[in-house]
Amino acid sequence: MKAEIIAVGTEILVGDIVNTNAQFLSRELFNLGIDMYYQTVAGDNPLRLTEAIRLAFGRADMVIFSGGLGPTEDDLTKETVAEYFDVPLLFHEEIKDEIKEYLKGYAKNGYPESNWKQAYIPEGAMILHNQRGTAPGIILEKNGKIAVLLPGPPRELLPMFTEQVVPYLRAKSDFVMESKVVRLFGIGEAKVGEIVCDLMEGSNPTVAPYAKDNEVTLRIAAKGETKEQAEALIETVQKEIENRLGDYIYGYDEENMPRTTAALLMERQLTVACAESCTAGLLTAMLGDIPGISSVLSESVVTYSNEAKMKYLGVLPETLASFGAVSEETAREMAEGIRKTASSDIGVSVTGIAGPDGGTPEKPVGLVYVGVSYRGEVTVKKLNLHGDRTKVRRGTVMHALNAVRECVLKNER
Amino acid sequence: MKAEIIAVGTEILVGDIVNTNAQFLSRELFNLGIDMYYQTVAGDNPLRLTEAIRLAFGRADMVIFSGGLGPTEDDLTKETVAEYFDVPLLFHEEIKDEIKEYLKGYAKNGYPESNWKQAYIPEGAMILHNQRGTAPGIILEKNGKIAVLLPGPPRELLPMFTEQVVPYLRAKSDFVMESKVVRLFGIGEAKVGEIVCDLMEGSNPTVAPYAKDNEVTLRIAAKGETKEQAEALIETVQKEIENRLGDYIYGYDEENMPRTTAALLMERQLTVACAESCTAGLLTAMLGDIPGISSVLSESVVTYSNEAKMKYLGVLPETLASFGAVSEETAREMAEGIRKTASSDIGVSVTGIAGPDGGTPEKPVGLVYVGVSYRGEVTVKKLNLHGDRTKVRRGTVMHALNAVRECVLKNER
Repeated sequence: MKAEIIAVGTEILVGDIVNTNAQFLSRELFNLGIDMYYQTVAGDNPLRLTEAIRLAFGRADMVIFSGGLGPTEDDLTKETVAEYFDVPLLFHEEIKDEIKEYLKGYAKNGYPESNWKQAYIPEGAMILHNQRGTAPGIILEKNGKIAVLLPGPPRELLPMFTEQVVPYLRAKSDFVMESKVVRLFGIGEAKVGEIVCDLMEGSNPTVAPYAKDNEVTLRIAAKGETKEQAEALIETVQKEIENRLGDYIYGYDEENMPRTTAALLMERQLTVACAESCTAGLLTAMLGDIPGISSVLSESVVTYSNEAKMKYLGVLPETLASFGAVSEETAREMAEGIRKTASSDIGVSVTGIAGPDGGTPEKPVGLVYVGVSYRGEVTVKKLNLHGDRTKVRRGTVMHALNAVRECVLKNER
Repeated sequence: MKAEIIAVGTEILVGDIVNTNAQFLSRELFNLGIDMYYQTVAGDNPLRLTEAIRLAFGRADMVIFSGGLGPTEDDLTKETVAEYFDVPLLFHEEIKDEIKEYLKGYAKNGYPESNWKQAYIPEGAMILHNQRGTAPGIILEKNGKIAVLLPGPPRELLPMFTEQVVPYLRAKSDFVMESKVVRLFGIGEAKVGEIVCDLMEGSNPTVAPYAKDNEVTLRIAAKGETKEQAEALIETVQKEIENRLGDYIYGYDEENMPRTTAALLMERQLTVACAESCTAGLLTAMLGDIPGISSVLSESVVTYSNEAKMKYLGVLPETLASFGAVSEETAREMAEGIRKTASSDIGVSVTGIAGPDGGTPEKPVGLVYVGVSYRGEVTVKKLNLHGDRTKVRRGTVMHALNAVRECVLKNER
C-alpha cells in the first residue's frame, strides 16, 4: 500500500507549530510496512486543500489527514474530503452526546453551538472515538481509496492512531511487521553504532539507532508471514544486542525512565522521597505522573536555599560552609536527611548548577551531584552535564531516576 | 510573491527526524510577507523529486529546498534542480578550497573525494557560503522563478537563511509584514471565535485563533508599506481584542504562563512557596525552569499523604477528617501553612484528584482546589478539569500560576 500525509493548518504554513504529527505518522507507517513518497502541508483553504487531496489520491491509495477537524469556521478538512468523495455529512446524535459529556465541566454558560459541527460524519464512514477532545476521527473508504482524518493536537492524534487506526491497517495487510525498541541509558549514539554496526547492515530484521535527549534507542523491525515469524527474527537480533549492550539497557518499547523506575519501586513496595535543589520539583513531578505512585511516594521537598536544606533535611551548616551547597557532601546529607524525615526506604537528592548563571571555574554550569540513600547506605554520583538550564535539569532527573533504578536492582536482587 | 518549501530526505519520510526546518522557514517567510500555500516532503529519488519541483513551480514563484546537498550518491537536490532548469553544473575551485579549509581538522587521512561533488554549482547561480559545513547554498533565478537550495542540518540552514537569504529577499520586497500574538487563559477556542468572529473576517490585518493545551492565542498579522504602517494596523485590532477579551489576556508573543508569573514575582520581589499534592512538584518545577527564580522561590513541599500535610504544613487532623484532603478547607490550610513555614509573601497550594483512580461521585477525577495565600489572606478556587492524569496535572499548574498572577495584580496595583 502507498500512503501520503496531508497536514492541514495555516498555523503550520506560518510557522506557529512544528509538524511533529508527520514524524509520528511516518514512523508508524514505516513500521507497518506502508510506503510513503510524499508529505504535504496545506492551509485552511478549501480550493487549495481540494487540489492537494486530488494530487495525493492520484499518487497513493491512502491519505492520512491531520488537523482541521475543530469547531470553528476555518476547520474544513472533513467538509472538503466529503465533497471530494461526493459523500454527504450526516448528523450523529451519539457524537453530540459524547461532545457534551466531554465539555461538561467547561460549559458553565451553555455549550457553544459551533461544537455541534463536530457531530457531522461523512455517510458510511467509520468513526474513531476521541476520549481526549471533541473532534472524532474518521476513516472513509470509497473506490479503493482510503481517507483517514485525525484531529491535530498530538495528544489526541497519537493515541487515536495507535489504538484505532493501527488495528484497522494491520487487518488490511497480507504480511506482518513487528518491531521492538531497545532503550539505552548512559551511552552515546556513535558508540552504540560502533558496537552494533554489523547488525545495522541487515535488511530483515533492520536495526536502526536513534538518539533522543538522554537516551539512545535501537529499533529492530522485521517482516514475516506471521506475527510469530517476525517476532522470531527480532528475538535473535535482540539477544545479540543484549549480549553486547546489556548494562546500558533500561527498558523496551514504550517504557521510559520515569515509568521503569516507578514500576520497580511499586512492584517491590519500596518507599521513596526526594530532596531537590536545581531540579526544583521536576524529579518528583516525573514520578508523580505515574498512576499509583502515591503508594510509595508520600512526600518530597524542594530546597533551593541553604536555610531550607538545613530546616527540612538537617544538612549541617559546617558542611554547607566547608564544601558548598553543590558538593558530594551536601548531596549525601540531603539524601539521608530526606530519607529520615520521610521515614522512607530510599532518599534521593539532587544539587547542582543548572545555569545560565551561578557557574564558576571550579563549579561550572552543569555540575550536578545525585545522592541515593538506601536504608542509610548512601552513594553519590557526580555529573557534568551539557546544554541550557532546561536540558541540565531534565538530564539530571533522568540520571537520578536511573541511580534509583540501579540501586534497587543492586540491593533487591 | 508566492513561495513553497520542499524538504528533501527519506529520513523525514520514514519518521527519523522532525522537519523543524519547515517551521523555521515558514515563520521567516511569513514575517517577510511572502505567501505560502503548500509545503512538501519528498524522498531522495530523482523522478519523484522532479515531479515535486514541477508541481511547486507550477504554483509558486519561489521554491526553497532543504536537504539533499550532501556529498553522498543519494544527495541529489542540486543535480535535479539544475536539470529541471536545464542549467549545467560548473566546478568551482574556490568552493573546493573552502571545503578543504572546513575539513582541515577532520581530514587526517586525506580528503574524501566525494566531497568535491559539493564544489559543483549551477551556471549563473548565486553561491551562499557555508561556515558551518561543507555544502554551499545556492540561489538560482531563471524565467521569473527562484530556487533557493539550503543544506539540511538546522545549524547550517538557520544562519545561512538569516544572514544571506533574508537580505536577498528583503531587497526584492516592496512591503513589510508585522504580527502580534495575544495569549488568553481561561476561555475556550470556540468562545473566543464567537466573540471576535467579525475581526477574523478582515484581510489586513488578519486575525487567526489557535488552541493549545490550556490556552488560546489570537495572531494578528498586518501588511504595510512601512513597519510603522503595519504596526498601526495591528494596534487598532489589538485594542479591540483587549476591549472584548481583556480579562482573559495574560500575555503577548513569546510569553507563556510560567514565564509571565515568574517575571511578575521577580519584578515585584515577592517571595513564593508551594505546597503540592496532586501536581507532585510540577508547579514548582515549572517555576524552577525560569532563570533567576531562586531569588523569590527558596522552598516548596510535595505532600501526597495526610501525614505529610500535617507534618510540613500544619493542616489540622480535624480538617482532613471532616472535609477530606481534597477540599477547599484543606487547600486553604495548605496555602497558609506553606506561606508561614517558608516565611514567604505568597503561599500556593494544590490538592486534587489527578486520576486515573481515586475518584468518587462526590469527588470525581479532575476535581482540584487551588489556594493562594497573600500575606495571610487566602482565596481558594475550585476546578473541574478534564482529561487524563497528565492533562489534569498540567492544567492544574497553569491555573495555579494564573491564580498567583491574578493575586499579585489585584494586591499590588
